[in-house]
Amino acid sequence: MSAPDSSPLFGNVALIGIGLIGSSMAHAMRRANLAGHIAGYARRPETRAVAEKIGFADSLHGDLAECVKNADLVVLATPVGSFAEIASELGPHLKRGAIITDVGSVKMAVVRDVGPFVPEGVHFIPGHPIAGTEQSGPDSGFAELFDGRWCILTPPPGTDVDAVAKLKTYWEKLGSNVEVMEPKHHDLVLAIVSHLPHLIAYNIVGTAADLETVTQSEVIKFSASGFRDFTRIAASDPTMWRDIFLNNRDAVLEMLGRFNEDLAALQRAIRWGDGDALFNLFTRTRAIRRSIVEAGQDTAAPNFGRSGKEKN
Amino acid sequence: MSAPDSSPLFGNVALIGIGLIGSSMAHAMRRANLAGHIAGYARRPETRAVAEKIGFADSLHGDLAECVKNADLVVLATPVGSFAEIASELGPHLKRGAIITDVGSVKMAVVRDVGPFVPEGVHFIPGHPIAGTEQSGPDSGFAELFDGRWCILTPPPGTDVDAVAKLKTYWEKLGSNVEVMEPKHHDLVLAIVSHLPHLIAYNIVGTAADLETVTQSEVIKFSASGFRDFTRIAASDPTMWRDIFLNNRDAVLEMLGRFNEDLAALQRAIRWGDGDALFNLFTRTRAIRRSIVEAGQDTAAPNFGRSGKEKN
Repeated sequence: MSAPDSSPLFGNVALIGIGLIGSSMAHAMRRANLAGHIAGYARRPETRAVAEKIGFADSLHGDLAECVKNADLVVLATPVGSFAEIASELGPHLKRGAIITDVGSVKMAVVRDVGPFVPEGVHFIPGHPIAGTEQSGPDSGFAELFDGRWCILTPPPGTDVDAVAKLKTYWEKLGSNVEVMEPKHHDLVLAIVSHLPHLIAYNIVGTAADLETVTQSEVIKFSASGFRDFTRIAASDPTMWRDIFLNNRDAVLEMLGRFNEDLAALQRAIRWGDGDALFNLFTRTRAIRRSIVEAGQDTAAPNFGRSGKEKN
Repeated sequence: MSAPDSSPLFGNVALIGIGLIGSSMAHAMRRANLAGHIAGYARRPETRAVAEKIGFADSLHGDLAECVKNADLVVLATPVGSFAEIASELGPHLKRGAIITDVGSVKMAVVRDVGPFVPEGVHFIPGHPIAGTEQSGPDSGFAELFDGRWCILTPPPGTDVDAVAKLKTYWEKLGSNVEVMEPKHHDLVLAIVSHLPHLIAYNIVGTAADLETVTQSEVIKFSASGFRDFTRIAASDPTMWRDIFLNNRDAVLEMLGRFNEDLAALQRAIRWGDGDALFNLFTRTRAIRRSIVEAGQDTAAPNFGRSGKEKN
């Protein structure tokens, strides 16, 4: 089923969106020789100009139909709120036998928004690489982004097994491990490991910015005491994150409800001076960090390896 | 007022507590030749044994009186909940003209707990270096910990100005910038930049650990999507953090109240699909991150510089 080593896995790949994830995929495809031709789509001419200068795509397009017309693999890599409109426009131009996937951070909404526009004979396999940084745009991508990270695929029931296997191989060659999951379960898992942490980070940075009793310059000067870690996450792309919260509402509200209950209990422990309750929680959470480092999902170096280096 | 370049700033320095902060101070004192003799106190023989092996102190003590008896500078560097008992025990043994300071993360409680035990003729100047990592113990210290960071001093009204100037010089030679502040204001600033972020991080890691619908192995595998940053902070020393929350209750509850109000508004925006409210907040928070990076308080590298490196 897989191509000989000398020829790429896909003939033509169309990247719809060439920001952090799209451009990183292009770099990683080149590194592993996965595409004969990489076509990149961006709505704005300025974005295409930056991409052209960097040179990670073989052709750049402002027209969706033109970008996808010969593609064997189409990857939606724009904010998820744009998927319905994009899918309705490019759907009729998809080649029979092609695979269409995406990299969106929610999956139920993608099934809902893209599914209806996928023609007979085209394989629709939603996906989500668990990788990223707080930066965005075509100049923020790099080939190593997916190395050692997980990519979740959520093929609808009855999807062609060869197509799923081929997309799995593709992600593995981009450097990732692959897991297959129901879209509903994906959205629940991501609500706790990603969406709620981002919401909390955005919220606390907003709270700090609004204080009258503590100045912004104090918040900035003394941020090394914990706050700065939250600001990294709260610097993520606003459009992408607005769309995530609008499209994973139920799971986010469910996790937020649990978070609020636990926080109320913690608030009460502080008010009543219950040191044992605090100590027990603070001890329990240490073990999770250890597991994440052992699983290779974070560095063991103190302060993420920043300590003693960030001066320079 | 300052000693000639060849002789150290202080003759004898006593470090009461030789964990992350105490041992880092010892390393940084040696780097800058700030102490003629470094005496370290630890209650547990095992801690003294580790410190002896590393060799950052000239003498190690299990007895407080013995550790401080000739000290020109005494630094309390144990969890703040232990200060009252320690101060009552070592107070009578302090040398006239000595400076006693601390590195605790709260300052009102330190004034309350240590102040009454400081004898006439001894200079009491509470302090707080805004530096640390999630690691603890005598083997976690390093000389560069305070470089480029801020140290806050909160001298009580009427404190000897020469003593304050000398302690300021000491911290500058350890690598820090120094700011003088009222203890009450310190506790408010730290509540938002440090204590609340830690509380939130501990809380969300606890919430994730308790879920029935998402397994712990899923939380760990997919943590690179945001959650792992919180686990670093939630791996901080439990005793130290229990004592901080018990001793900065009012300021933490005040900041938590504001955080909860803001979070309720955000929750409502998600429930009602108010994309503009979300987008506006997410845009505003980006600017704060930029200021922190510009102020040299964090790295500009994506993912704190972990990206593409954490595999190895």
